[in-house]
Order: sequence, then C-alpha cells, then structure tokens
Amino acid sequence: MPLTMPRHSENWLNIDLAAIVENWRYIDSLSDFTTNTAAVVKANGYGLGANEVALALAVAGCNEFFVATLNEAISLRSYLAKTDYKSCHIMTFHGCHHGQEELHAQQCITPVLNNPEQLSRWKLYSQKISKYLPALIHFDTGMTRLGFNAEQTRWLLKNKTTFHGLDVRYIMSHLVSGEISEAPVTEHQLAKFKQLKSSFAGIPASLANSAGSLLSSNYHFQMNRPGIALYGAHPADCSSSKLKSVLKWQARVIQLQQAKAGDRIGYGGTHLLTRDSKIATIGVGYADGYNRNLGGKATVKIGENKAPVIGRVSMDSITVDVTNFADDTLSDSVVNLIHDEYDLCRMARDTNTIPYETLTSLGSRPTRHYVNV
Amino acid sequence: MPLTMPRHSENWLNIDLAAIVENWRYIDSLSDFTTNTAAVVKANGYGLGANEVALALAVAGCNEFFVATLNEAISLRSYLAKTDYKSCHIMTFHGCHHGQEELHAQQCITPVLNNPEQLSRWKLYSQKISKYLPALIHFDTGMTRLGFNAEQTRWLLKNKTTFHGLDVRYIMSHLVSGEISEAPVTEHQLAKFKQLKSSFAGIPASLANSAGSLLSSNYHFQMNRPGIALYGAHPADCSSSKLKSVLKWQARVIQLQQAKAGDRIGYGGTHLLTRDSKIATIGVGYADGYNRNLGGKATVKIGENKAPVIGRVSMDSITVDVTNFADDTLSDSVVNLIHDEYDLCRMARDTNTIPYETLTSLGSRPTRHYVNV
Repeated sequence: MPLTMPRHSENWLNIDLAAIVENWRYIDSLSDFTTNTAAVVKANGYGLGANEVALALAVAGCNEFFVATLNEAISLRSYLAKTDYKSCHIMTFHGCHHGQEELHAQQCITPVLNNPEQLSRWKLYSQKISKYLPALIHFDTGMTRLGFNAEQTRWLLKNKTTFHGLDVRYIMSHLVSGEISEAPVTEHQLAKFKQLKSSFAGIPASLANSAGSLLSSNYHFQMNRPGIALYGAHPADCSSSKLKSVLKWQARVIQLQQAKAGDRIGYGGTHLLTRDSKIATIGVGYADGYNRNLGGKATVKIGENKAPVIGRVSMDSITVDVTNFADDTLSDSVVNLIHDEYDLCRMARDTNTIPYETLTSLGSRPTRHYVNV
Repeated sequence: MPLTMPRHSENWLNIDLAAIVENWRYIDSLSDFTTNTAAVVKANGYGLGANEVALALAVAGCNEFFVATLNEAISLRSYLAKTDYKSCHIMTFHGCHHGQEELHAQQCITPVLNNPEQLSRWKLYSQKISKYLPALIHFDTGMTRLGFNAEQTRWLLKNKTTFHGLDVRYIMSHLVSGEISEAPVTEHQLAKFKQLKSSFAGIPASLANSAGSLLSSNYHFQMNRPGIALYGAHPADCSSSKLKSVLKWQARVIQLQQAKAGDRIGYGGTHLLTRDSKIATIGVGYADGYNRNLGGKATVKIGENKAPVIGRVSMDSITVDVTNFADDTLSDSVVNLIHDEYDLCRMARDTNTIPYETLTSLGSRPTRHYVNV
C-alpha cells in the first residue's frame, strides 16, 4: 500500500497544501503591491481543513482570513494561537450577532458589519470597553443577501461620525456574477462600489472574491478575498490551467468478485449485467460525500485504466465494473475517485451543482491527509 | 431565544433520542422474543451522532450495533467503554481487511466476513492467538456488492469445517428492494436465504434491514438490523405515522431587510422581486448540508407561517421572502428548515435523492443538540 493510504480508512483525501499556497501566490501576483490577498477558509476551508489551510497560507505570508461565523472564527483563532501566526486577522462574514460582542473582542475577531444594527452593537461595545475595535463595513451592491442596503447606506453617508471610535479597516461588497464574462451587473456593481469608495475617502476597500480577483485589476482595491480558486477550481472556467489541482480523493477496493451475465447490481437492481463480469466494491459512499446521483455516471481510475461506476451508490460503498482489469492490477490497489478524465468540475456537473458544493459536501469520514506540508 | 438554541450556532439539529428509542422499541415489538433487534449506527448514526444514539439505545436494551468500517467501530467502542455498556457487540459490515485483525480482536469488534479471503484471514488470526473469535458470515442473495457469491457459497457448504474455531454468531444477507411492496426479488432473496439457513442448521440468521423489519415477520429470523427507521424515516412510505420524527433542523435570522421591486436576490440574480419585499437571510447554507438545489423549491417555517426560499442557496446562507410577516414575529426568531409542511422526505425528493442521503449530508457545522436524553 502506498504511504498516502492511512491504514484503516476506506477512503481518504490527499490535500496538497503547497498547491493551495501556489494558487494563493498566483492570485496575489495578479494584483499590485497595494492590494492585500486574503484567504477565505469558511466551511472548514471548503471541506479541506480550515486550520491546516490557514497555517500553510500564514507561513506563505497571508495575514487576513475570512470565515462565516463566530464559531468558525473561535476555532481557527484557538488553532493559530498555538503557532507563530497568532496575530493574523480573522474576519466573520456574518458579523457580530446579539451576545457575541465579548467573544469577538476577546478573541481578536473582526466582524464584518452588515447593517446598522450590527454597526451600532459593535460601536456600543467598543465604547463600553473603551477600545478602538476593528470592523469591516459591508455594502450591498446587488446581492440582496447581506450588507447595508441603499437606504441604510444613504443614512450612513449622512452620519459618518458613526464610524468614530471604530477602526474601520475596510469597506467591502460582494460580486453577484463575477464568474460570468461581461455580466452587466458586475460593471454596475463596480461603478456603485467606486462611488462608495469615494464617499468614504481614506478607508481601504475590498470587492473581489475569486472571480473578481481573476477578472481584472479594475476589481482589485486594497484587498482581494479568494476562496474557491485557492482550492484549485476556477469559478468561471473549469479547464483553466493556471490553478493547481489541490485534491486527490482515493479509496480502496473492499471486495472483488466474479458475477454472471443476468446478475443485477446494488439497491433496486438498477444495473443488469449483460456479460459475465468482474465487480469491485469500493469503500466510499454517499455518506462520504460521493453523491448518490453519480451511480451510472461517474468513472474511477485504477492504475492507468478507467472503470465505470455501475448500479446505485450506497451509503458506504460503490460498485465498479473491472472486467477488463487483470487481477494483479486490482488487489491492494488505490482507486482514484477524482482523476484527469473525471475531475471535480465534471463530478459537480453530474450532480447538478458546482465544485464549491462538491467540496463542502465531503463528509467527515474520509481521512484528511496533508501532503507537501 | 429558546433554550434549544446553542448560543453561537447559526443553525443546529435538535435530535430527539427518546424518539429514536421509541422507533427502536416499535420495530422490536414487531418481532417475537426470539428475534434480537440490533441498531445500525454507521455513518455517524446517519449523521445524527453514533455515540449518542448507541448509548441511548443501549440504555433501552439494545446490545448489537452495526457500523461500516473499523474506524467507526473503534470510535464507538472507545465511547461505550466509558459507560455501563462496555460489552455491547459492535459489528463492521465491511469486515476485516488485511492488517485489521489485531484491532478487531483487541477492541472486541466482530467483523462481518464477506468472502473467503476475509474468512480465512480471521480464522488464521483466531488460530494464531488461540481464541474463539466471533464473526458474522454474509451471503450475497442478489445485491452483488458484498457477501459470498453463489460459487463461494457452494464451496463453503462443502467445507463447513472452515467455521471450526470461530464463533459464527449469525449468518446474514441484505435485501435489494425490501422497500418496494411485493418486489419479486425480495421473495426470491427470502427463499435463497431460507435455504442457506437450513444448510447451516443451528446458526442464528439475520436478513432484515428497516424495510425487512417492517415488511413481515417472514423476514425476521434471529436478528433484525434497522437503520433508517430508527431515525424516523420509513424506507417505503414517507407518510407512515408509526415512526416518530427524530430531527428538528433550525436556524436563526442573521439579517432582515427591505428590498425593492426590481431587485434581484443572491448569486446570478436568479430571483427577481416583483414587489417591494422583506427578505430574511438565514444562517444555513449548502456547507451545512442544506442542498444547493433547494433554492426556489423549499419553504421554511417561522412561528406558524411558511416562507419560500428564494434565489440560490449560498454556502453559508439562504434568503427567504418574509414580506407578509410582522417584524415582531421575526426578530430573534427560530427558523424551522424541516417542518410539518416540508419534511425530510420532501426535502430529499426536491434534491433527487432519499432521506438517507439528506441525513448523511448534514455537515459538521450545525451543532448537534440532544433532547429527551
């Protein structure tokens, strides 16, 4: 068995931290020296491990990390506190909810303030503890999801003194369709954001997610916030070669058997064998995040050869047709679930979703194995 | 805020352990006293927590627990070892792979032996350590996934002495389509299994999963192995009222805002508002297991009223239309993601899958909160 196979796992993720660092450096190289490149590590680093990803990027020079929630921030802070990178900024996209003021301040977590209520809460708390607390202010320029809306923004422009006593590190907004080439809404958002930037002169600004970072330097202000691109998937173009692939998902054969023409495979007997066949049962199923809709669609790769996934995906296993494989190429073999002819984007498309969800759907059962640390 | 809302989580699972126990007792009541009722707690107890579920069932009298893999078994054994239920049986459906003999034996884990190779491995190890080790023997009667196939079974019948030195606790098989009423394959499997049972006289037998347990006492031999039914979902009939609902999935409103007719909601701006609207952003997204395909399909319930999920599901949030809600019914409100008018089965159907996958797709971010412990 190869060294990369954790001994008792039936399937595992090889996560290439050097590739994540390389992707971060590539995105960083697209902007000039006045633009910081942050890293979005929410949802446990898109399923790949927020702690490990953040530490690798901190070593490489990244100093700004975004998560969604306070729980995620506390968990990352407590991990980084034991490293040489204690003082990294950690930001909560969802901001500071009622009752979360003390923990945000105590753990040095910077909330993104998404509305007047969050702003006033954070400001009151900063006054209460007499500290100049950090914050980002989020303006909605078209998502209608989070951020100050138009009316709230007008109010804030008339009451800029509200910022007094706070360290407003950045104003920010978020792109709706940055991955769609020349979407009118993207330019519209850019124009709106430029106007905001000029209204809040002197405050650094941040607009670009992965898509915006890759789109054009027009979208780079003082900070880019790549997420998916760090993990090797281009938000617009799955075949982009500029980003390094980060993830290998592998599994082991747990049973190999001869079956007869006329036998049926798996739940519901949906797959009928039309010839005598050799069937390999592989130790990965939908509970690991191998989507149930991949049955009859996906292929796996064993050595240099592809094998189709036949029958339904079970909770803990899949079955593949290996009739054309020699037995000695199969025993103790590593099965590649994602490979050059069936990549993350293809897997996402076959389950009617995007690589982001394929990654965040990876279960907790597959062992995370970090390579090139 | 209600007591059931863990303070800093944006969404959480209320898991009713008493309901799981009640479902187990109900299934147990369907068979007579010669049939044991085991519990399948693989895949982290179908996403709801293997340790907590197993302990609650052990207290209720369940003594046989099935997981898929050795890692799962070790984790459950180490949890139960600290309780009064140290001596429960834990079985690995995937059996004992090469190099896993010692840990299986040391941790008192019983492998399901799925083929001659596993049988011979376990037998050799039992001879090596001079112990009478427990095992289940799995015969394939139609799944073509795991278990002795027809040819291997014929060999075993001619070589029954192979069992000598092992404590063969049960022979077992697994139903292909137990949930489909009067599927010919089910009766065919039953006939095959009865024949096996008579060939291995004196060894207890187990055939029924949830579907088989609920189907008829013909399928009850000496042990039933319910899984999904314990967690409240009937494998055949989503509207079955005999099983208690186990799961409440709830979330909090993280932003409330007024939007204008003509505004667009979320990524890609897929939802156009045709009237001035009140939009609530809820702290749950596809990284939590709230499937991305639920955008535009699902509803949530806040208090007594339903609100449609509009626009795309984001990684960490969804947006719902609450235009018809009074503000005081919304602030600090609990949002029910699964409710009487949008249950687990409906959610599964809307994402082209089955409740099993909806449960096992629940992410690690939602806090598990156990009620009626």
